[in-house]
Amino acid sequence: MKTSNYLLYTLKTISNQTDTISNQLMLRAGIIRKISSGLYTWLPTGMRVIKKIQTIIQKELNKTNAIEISMPILQPSKIWENSGRIKTYGKELLKIHDRRNKMFILSPTHEELITLLLKKEINSYKQLPIILYQTQTKFRDEIRPRFGTIRTREFLMKDAYSFHLKSSCLDKTYKIMYKIYSKIFKSMNINFKIVEASSNNMGGNISHEFQAISSSGEDKIVFSNNSNYASNIEIAAIKNNLNNLLDIDENNYLLKNKIFFKKLNRICIQKINHYSIPNLVNTFIAKYYSGKKLSFIALLIKKNRQLNLTKIKNLTLFSSPITLATQKEIFKLTGQNDLNVIGPIGLTIPIISDIEVAKMKNFSVKANAKNYFFTGVNWIRDLKKPYIEDIRNIEKDDNNPDNTTEKITISPSIEIAHIFKIGSIYSKKINFSIKNKDKKDVFLKMGCYGIGITRLIATIIEQHHDKYGIIWPNSIAPFHVALIPINFHKSTTVKKTSNHMYDELKKNNIDTILDNRKEYLGKMFSEIELIGIPHILILKKNHILKGKIEYKNRREKNNILIPIKNVIDFIKQQMV
Amino acid sequence: MKTSNYLLYTLKTISNQTDTISNQLMLRAGIIRKISSGLYTWLPTGMRVIKKIQTIIQKELNKTNAIEISMPILQPSKIWENSGRIKTYGKELLKIHDRRNKMFILSPTHEELITLLLKKEINSYKQLPIILYQTQTKFRDEIRPRFGTIRTREFLMKDAYSFHLKSSCLDKTYKIMYKIYSKIFKSMNINFKIVEASSNNMGGNISHEFQAISSSGEDKIVFSNNSNYASNIEIAAIKNNLNNLLDIDENNYLLKNKIFFKKLNRICIQKINHYSIPNLVNTFIAKYYSGKKLSFIALLIKKNRQLNLTKIKNLTLFSSPITLATQKEIFKLTGQNDLNVIGPIGLTIPIISDIEVAKMKNFSVKANAKNYFFTGVNWIRDLKKPYIEDIRNIEKDDNNPDNTTEKITISPSIEIAHIFKIGSIYSKKINFSIKNKDKKDVFLKMGCYGIGITRLIATIIEQHHDKYGIIWPNSIAPFHVALIPINFHKSTTVKKTSNHMYDELKKNNIDTILDNRKEYLGKMFSEIELIGIPHILILKKNHILKGKIEYKNRREKNNILIPIKNVIDFIKQQMV
Repeated sequence: MKTSNYLLYTLKTISNQTDTISNQLMLRAGIIRKISSGLYTWLPTGMRVIKKIQTIIQKELNKTNAIEISMPILQPSKIWENSGRIKTYGKELLKIHDRRNKMFILSPTHEELITLLLKKEINSYKQLPIILYQTQTKFRDEIRPRFGTIRTREFLMKDAYSFHLKSSCLDKTYKIMYKIYSKIFKSMNINFKIVEASSNNMGGNISHEFQAISSSGEDKIVFSNNSNYASNIEIAAIKNNLNNLLDIDENNYLLKNKIFFKKLNRICIQKINHYSIPNLVNTFIAKYYSGKKLSFIALLIKKNRQLNLTKIKNLTLFSSPITLATQKEIFKLTGQNDLNVIGPIGLTIPIISDIEVAKMKNFSVKANAKNYFFTGVNWIRDLKKPYIEDIRNIEKDDNNPDNTTEKITISPSIEIAHIFKIGSIYSKKINFSIKNKDKKDVFLKMGCYGIGITRLIATIIEQHHDKYGIIWPNSIAPFHVALIPINFHKSTTVKKTSNHMYDELKKNNIDTILDNRKEYLGKMFSEIELIGIPHILILKKNHILKGKIEYKNRREKNNILIPIKNVIDFIKQQMV
Repeated sequence: MKTSNYLLYTLKTISNQTDTISNQLMLRAGIIRKISSGLYTWLPTGMRVIKKIQTIIQKELNKTNAIEISMPILQPSKIWENSGRIKTYGKELLKIHDRRNKMFILSPTHEELITLLLKKEINSYKQLPIILYQTQTKFRDEIRPRFGTIRTREFLMKDAYSFHLKSSCLDKTYKIMYKIYSKIFKSMNINFKIVEASSNNMGGNISHEFQAISSSGEDKIVFSNNSNYASNIEIAAIKNNLNNLLDIDENNYLLKNKIFFKKLNRICIQKINHYSIPNLVNTFIAKYYSGKKLSFIALLIKKNRQLNLTKIKNLTLFSSPITLATQKEIFKLTGQNDLNVIGPIGLTIPIISDIEVAKMKNFSVKANAKNYFFTGVNWIRDLKKPYIEDIRNIEKDDNNPDNTTEKITISPSIEIAHIFKIGSIYSKKINFSIKNKDKKDVFLKMGCYGIGITRLIATIIEQHHDKYGIIWPNSIAPFHVALIPINFHKSTTVKKTSNHMYDELKKNNIDTILDNRKEYLGKMFSEIELIGIPHILILKKNHILKGKIEYKNRREKNNILIPIKNVIDFIKQQMV
């Protein structure tokens, strides 16, 4: 490409409304333009990166015998009603009504549709396993679109689906996809961790996220620097010695319980500064349903710990998942009108204690009045025997769950891919079974594998930039090489050599941009640096006359001179 | 690809709800599956064809320096309100409300958005001309989706937009796109005509459609078999001698008008069989607005002629376009309650006469009562002097408008592409101007160029099939060659040669499918024919032992034997 035929769309300055460095650089370097909240146009340079990523993904997927299809963006909402996900997705699902008032959803994902499709097409186990994929625009009505293309309402995704007769076959494909995804992201020089993750509203219970380390990330991951341990903080279990925790038997408990009120005078109610309270334990009120009956429960975690909503939701203590109570519900239950004063003493609801809290003695809790606390609180004597569960986020001072002596690292990160062993949830819902070799009907097992392509680009920039702009990894650079001639329009030597070099690079399949504009060298150079072309060749007349050309690696500070006749080989070496 | 890793998705029979041969074949050959009215999944074989078409289009567009971008599918509806097209598109526009009740449209096209985008990016005439394109899923809420992927609600489109300072520059690009589109469609062996067309709600007044001849087409085109004349019937002018038509001057007319009622007795009112009426002229009631005032007008055309609504809409007689009156309006105006009895005599509204009718003498019109007609009607004496305009469709018995002696051909057709000289309609609306060399502000001129990719595939099948199935043109065949081995699983000779042949063909970039399933030869053969692979190689042990292989061209009846060592060259020759 020559800049005479190509608009660079670079911007010197941008409004300070942008929230991340990648968003700033993507706007300034002419990768994207914002149309509306969470909606972007991809400019030519951005499109070139998208295409390169698509090609890398496609090449790797084809090796697994994954086959490309394309399902519609509009799905009849009935399909999602039948699977129940119209509820679980809630307001994130964009819904549309056609001229006949029939409802459709704008697809965020295609598990239901692909299962329905294959139910009609697969009639023998000999046709299995099968892996299908598509690269498609997906939609999600984000409550707060932000961080440029990291959290958008319309995004490009590669989604793959595999179907199997046996779990062992799903396991095998899952492992292959796990490896292929790792290979894809390594080829793009991404610093990422593969972590165990929650499946959330996808269904299934085994899933892994590919999380790129980034200070702009909204996720949090936990990992060990020495072992293979890595997890999304949402589900990172806390290593705890569960022995000797309130090992009082139920009878003993009941006995003690009788004297509960008598012994209340042993604990003190004190008005103290919140920050000076010893061993403060915070109380959250949560709810669950027994059938249709709403019940409440108190959750106790140590001060400065984070309640982990995913862990709570995944508890199987009751027949419905536990979720936080609303402010209104809490006020009604406790008779208070301030969420900051809620404590467990006096409440007749059951308690879930975090493991850490269950070990505590003489702790403090809030006393249902502003600035008042009960101190010297002890289990059984002052508070009923609780359920003891892991309900908080793991913290820096916790041990690696795989290794009791090592501490863990916690980092913000960006989810760039997610793979799921869904199992037979969707095939059971639509009764999709196939006879196995023994003529027994078996529900098909499913795996799902997604890469967020447009988000990936922002993530790569988060990890690959400096103060001058983007620094693209070779594999996905919009152009591998930028040719910057000095006095292109004045010197025939420069012009001739530039055009010749351009043709030679093209012939060798090296994506090259020749900046043949009538612009100041400074402007050309700073734009090429901003856009992040990894290899820059500067053509000066006096160098050319000596058979030389100046080379600058975008990642390095100093330029070097190389013989013109070696340029192609030299560039090829740089690109390995 | 080997069929052991590839699902063919073929169907022996399909429900008889399908409306066109292409739809039937696309379902049977595993190209598509219907999800809902006007919504389809593209199966692997279909995706391969889509990709090939995309590659051909992209390759040709890149030669013109057109650059790829990607604009969002969701557009804020405000943009379309500002351009006025939210009204003109009407119910075909799919609208969606997000969780904040903000309205968006699902893009059918991007003229507004690209103009807005470039207004912010272009600041010098030196950056022009520019051609940008995208390949994107588009949406249209069709009132009656039909004919498989010919008329859908979600479709894949390649849309390009060019911007220019001067009309002459737009003309030049328009001509290039015209040529490139022709080249693209010729390379796909499509029988098409390029016709002058109406721009409808795109704006601008010069446009050409690429119309593929097909009995399943919903469009109608008119063309000459000897000259270059070709037009969409919507705008095909009728060659007429406009001289000596009611050449009575206005005064004379007024004079005659005075005696109108006196002479009424010269015409007869008769009860006669509709089919035996001589020179019947039909009357339609249309309407227009003068400011906010609604006025009516009668349209007169000969029996068996088709009223042309586009021609009527394009008339510039009044300040608003003329459209047909509603039944309610007609009943109120005429006092009748039957649309089939409406005639012009007695109505006080003005008349537009088709040119043909203006030449008639002693014709008949309906007499506002069932089975009653006025006969022997003459202009001026019995009916007021009309406006004389071309308001009907051209017919087989009309002359070629370019040549008074030659008759024209009329054919149904499918619109596969449309190019428009839009001019500065959109740039004027958002005040997008650039200073030219003389520092004068000039509104940018725009061209738009669209190819309907998913529709194109159905069209090609309409033109390329036989009773056994699809016959793909080489350039877009999902596979160029099918290898059908006989006794692949029994004979090591057959297996070895098949696999070797497969590898050799792949090495030569010939897309090949090797059918290595354990299936009856008959089934394998009929499926490959149904799918339409243009070149079939049949591997039999006794032929292989003689160094031969059987070749069948999908378009020809007889098979031939060719030496194995010549196969690659032979196939390459066939593909030229």
